[in-house]
Amino acid sequence: MQSINSNEEETLRVRKLEITDKSKGFIELLQQLTICDSVSDNDFQERFQELSAYGDNHVICVIEDDSSRKIIATGSVFIEKKFIRNCGKVGHIEDVVVDSSARGKQLGKKIVGFLMDHACSMGCYKVILDCSVENRAFYEKCGFKEKEVKMVKYFI
Amino acid sequence: MQSINSNEEETLRVRKLEITDKSKGFIELLQQLTICDSVSDNDFQERFQELSAYGDNHVICVIEDDSSRKIIATGSVFIEKKFIRNCGKVGHIEDVVVDSSARGKQLGKKIVGFLMDHACSMGCYKVILDCSVENRAFYEKCGFKEKEVKMVKYFI
Repeated sequence: MQSINSNEEETLRVRKLEITDKSKGFIELLQQLTICDSVSDNDFQERFQELSAYGDNHVICVIEDDSSRKIIATGSVFIEKKFIRNCGKVGHIEDVVVDSSARGKQLGKKIVGFLMDHACSMGCYKVILDCSVENRAFYEKCGFKEKEVKMVKYFI
Repeated sequence: MQSINSNEEETLRVRKLEITDKSKGFIELLQQLTICDSVSDNDFQERFQELSAYGDNHVICVIEDDSSRKIIATGSVFIEKKFIRNCGKVGHIEDVVVDSSARGKQLGKKIVGFLMDHACSMGCYKVILDCSVENRAFYEKCGFKEKEVKMVKYFI
């Protein structure tokens, strides 16, 4: 990936995912996070439309490097509507990743800050996420605290 | 709450939440889980309709005691659609609670089993949840394993 130019502070803004971002390395960026096979254009467009239908209740944001035209950071948040907490809402942050060549530039903080602000503006009473032990300190810097236990069951 | 009759095995089946369940103690049951103020009929109906619009992507299930006509167990699962894992899906289990007078009857296992089956049938590659340290053993019996770290930030 091309190095980031010196005006990066001005150009590295967070915006919502656009349908053209597949051609800018969005899927390859997710592959740095976990298992993410190559996605066909049709599958991408179909999933993009499905998520768009949720509007502000499911937002994926990205940072694009304007010099390389590559997506170098991303994260998502979806809003769960509940009956508890006076019909409250909870923001779930998922799939946060920063390109390996662009780390140390506070892009992760920008992404998480954007997602937290969105959840807050949607009226959520809290925002939650799961992370590895290695990333705990990062999220503590973002204002999170460890709580309870995360459990998982894989079907495949 | 009235005691459960001897035919409970036949009558205690899991079904989806119905709009009439508010009058059967559904909100009072949630109050055993966490902060859950009394909810007006209008607020309940509005939230019920919002969640119903998600169809199979957000399911709340309950167990009704046919003798007392009270809701004595509940849980929910919503399906998150992702780009990772070949445009995979993840089931998020939330707000599982069994009435304090009906514990020890495997109702929690029935609820969680129903939610897991639903997530599996929707094509999820995994199902996840957060729980207290005290409930970890219960979810291990349901087939879950502890993984990673749960982080939270409260806005209010």
